[in-house]
Amino acid sequence: MEIKELGEVALIERLTKDIKISNLSTHLGIGDDAAIVNHSDKETLLTSRLFMEGIQFDLTYIDMEHLAYKCAMITMSNIFAMNGRPTQIIVSIGLGKRFKVEDLEDFYRGLKTACYKWKVDLVGGDTTSSFTGLAINMTCMGEVEKESIVYRKGAKPTDIICVSGDLGAAYMGLQILEREKTVYYQQVEEYNRKLKDATSSNNKAMLEGLKAEREAINHFQPDFVGKEYLIDRQLKPEAPGDVLKQLSEADIHPTSMIDVSDGLASDLKHICKQSGCGCRIYENKIPIDYQTASACEEFNMNLTTAALNGGEDYELLFTIPIEEHAKIEQVENIHQIGYITEEKLGEYIITRDGKEFELMAQGWNKQ
Amino acid sequence: MEIKELGEVALIERLTKDIKISNLSTHLGIGDDAAIVNHSDKETLLTSRLFMEGIQFDLTYIDMEHLAYKCAMITMSNIFAMNGRPTQIIVSIGLGKRFKVEDLEDFYRGLKTACYKWKVDLVGGDTTSSFTGLAINMTCMGEVEKESIVYRKGAKPTDIICVSGDLGAAYMGLQILEREKTVYYQQVEEYNRKLKDATSSNNKAMLEGLKAEREAINHFQPDFVGKEYLIDRQLKPEAPGDVLKQLSEADIHPTSMIDVSDGLASDLKHICKQSGCGCRIYENKIPIDYQTASACEEFNMNLTTAALNGGEDYELLFTIPIEEHAKIEQVENIHQIGYITEEKLGEYIITRDGKEFELMAQGWNKQ
Repeated sequence: MEIKELGEVALIERLTKDIKISNLSTHLGIGDDAAIVNHSDKETLLTSRLFMEGIQFDLTYIDMEHLAYKCAMITMSNIFAMNGRPTQIIVSIGLGKRFKVEDLEDFYRGLKTACYKWKVDLVGGDTTSSFTGLAINMTCMGEVEKESIVYRKGAKPTDIICVSGDLGAAYMGLQILEREKTVYYQQVEEYNRKLKDATSSNNKAMLEGLKAEREAINHFQPDFVGKEYLIDRQLKPEAPGDVLKQLSEADIHPTSMIDVSDGLASDLKHICKQSGCGCRIYENKIPIDYQTASACEEFNMNLTTAALNGGEDYELLFTIPIEEHAKIEQVENIHQIGYITEEKLGEYIITRDGKEFELMAQGWNKQ
Repeated sequence: MEIKELGEVALIERLTKDIKISNLSTHLGIGDDAAIVNHSDKETLLTSRLFMEGIQFDLTYIDMEHLAYKCAMITMSNIFAMNGRPTQIIVSIGLGKRFKVEDLEDFYRGLKTACYKWKVDLVGGDTTSSFTGLAINMTCMGEVEKESIVYRKGAKPTDIICVSGDLGAAYMGLQILEREKTVYYQQVEEYNRKLKDATSSNNKAMLEGLKAEREAINHFQPDFVGKEYLIDRQLKPEAPGDVLKQLSEADIHPTSMIDVSDGLASDLKHICKQSGCGCRIYENKIPIDYQTASACEEFNMNLTTAALNGGEDYELLFTIPIEEHAKIEQVENIHQIGYITEEKLGEYIITRDGKEFELMAQGWNKQ
């Protein structure tokens, strides 16, 4: 159904009618000029992320449902990175005429799944047209006890640097998706070339034969066998809320924390810069999944570069006092990858063969 | 300067280095994964708006500084419409390669001017590339005493409908800007046509004569004489914070309130719908500036339609109990335009000649 058939008011009603509120702190959700929230004796956290078509996502290989889920998880991840709990979210979307009501319904389905997963209330938004690509902005609010907040700036020399999960998988997932997209478009191009030839020469047999080719393209199946984990990490990232629970249960208090979005190197440099420290990490301690390593080999890419600079991992990178060393050993899925130093000692990675290389960030500058 | 020369981190530092915090409720501004806010015993308000190039704004006639100011005012306006005070703002911007560091500096200058005006702290943001147009999202937080909140839903039959300032001016400003844009492009087209002729016939005298024409185009001056107010209302709207101060000083407590963004008709219908009421407004009571009336005549447009459906006025539309009639008479610049009725009586405008017409909303559907 066309969006303008329905109209803005009816559309928003349709998308939001079954939304339930799960937080006592949400005093008013969607429907007025602003949402009303009260985190009473807790601190309120606020973060916002903008996602642009062609930059942060490509609708060739992510559908609207997964896209909404992913954007929500990325935004919530920022709240977890302060040791907070996400509680409310506001979603703005600017979309062109090619989008239908059904696309927005898919989008809201993914959004609601993400919200229900972390008990976050959808409390507002803005829907507008766009002349060009799809633009999505998500603003997430969270709550945290004042004494529990973990900043980027709290790391101290001798602190252990830890990271949850594994790194580089989302980046390799992206490489695979890009490759399959290229394969698909090559097939389409080849088909169009043959069709042109057959039509201009009025070659009926060839035209007949092309029907099967067209059918095959319509049912194009990208080759993801043995790479399911990588695709999942790229298309369906999870916000690291469980890691916080693990740390809290183990009575571990990070001195600094950030979520790995730009890549380990870039994000660790943020911690170092804001804490006025240096660092040493060990190449052989960086956690990497088997599928990531195998994909790097296939693509002839450097595994450590993928893990250091790939980004989109949404794992937690944090530091803990050296005294908590024994405790962290007991926590599953947390890896100690190095330690914090005095600032003057710089930021270095120590390779498998014992050489030191300066950590280089590659964030937004890559583009 | 190219943005990629500077890099994301240095860019954000450059844009935000002189930002001062004016609210005690801002515990942490820009620089970590999320901002930290605490409105202590007050309620927190949250609203977000997305502005897309070509839809909400046209860079042909608004510069980056005014654009930032306007977007900020529009977003803050939503907080005032709940009878709140805006306190924090987060700004996300997606921009293509054609933008330079200087454009962003202009943008931040406008943003800071808007923030200082209402003592709002800029506490975060997200900057990303865009393949296409410029996209801006602003999220504003505000604070309000619980008992002071004014919702859309509180209107009661016999309540007086009031509106601040005047209506339709921003819309007529837009018409003038669009017209001058057309005039400008006609001149450019004419120049290009002549240039092509002169070049192909190698007519040196004509080529020489065209230099003056080119100079004139370079110094094109749109004709805004006697329309300054309309242009100002379109390019430099103000959030209606002063109106709240007036109402509070006069000890007037609106029963419902909204800011006029989509147009009087559409926004009044929101109040009626959410309050379960109907309304009557009088055409001859709708406040209209002299310049608006004069521009309508020039453009051969219906004045009441411009005032009802033009939008972008950012005035406050609110209802008060009939008992406060005497008080509101004393408040400058507030106009009583009608009254609230039982729902079954519908939503009507009474024309100058005493006829009743059903109020029709034209919001987003217009496009």
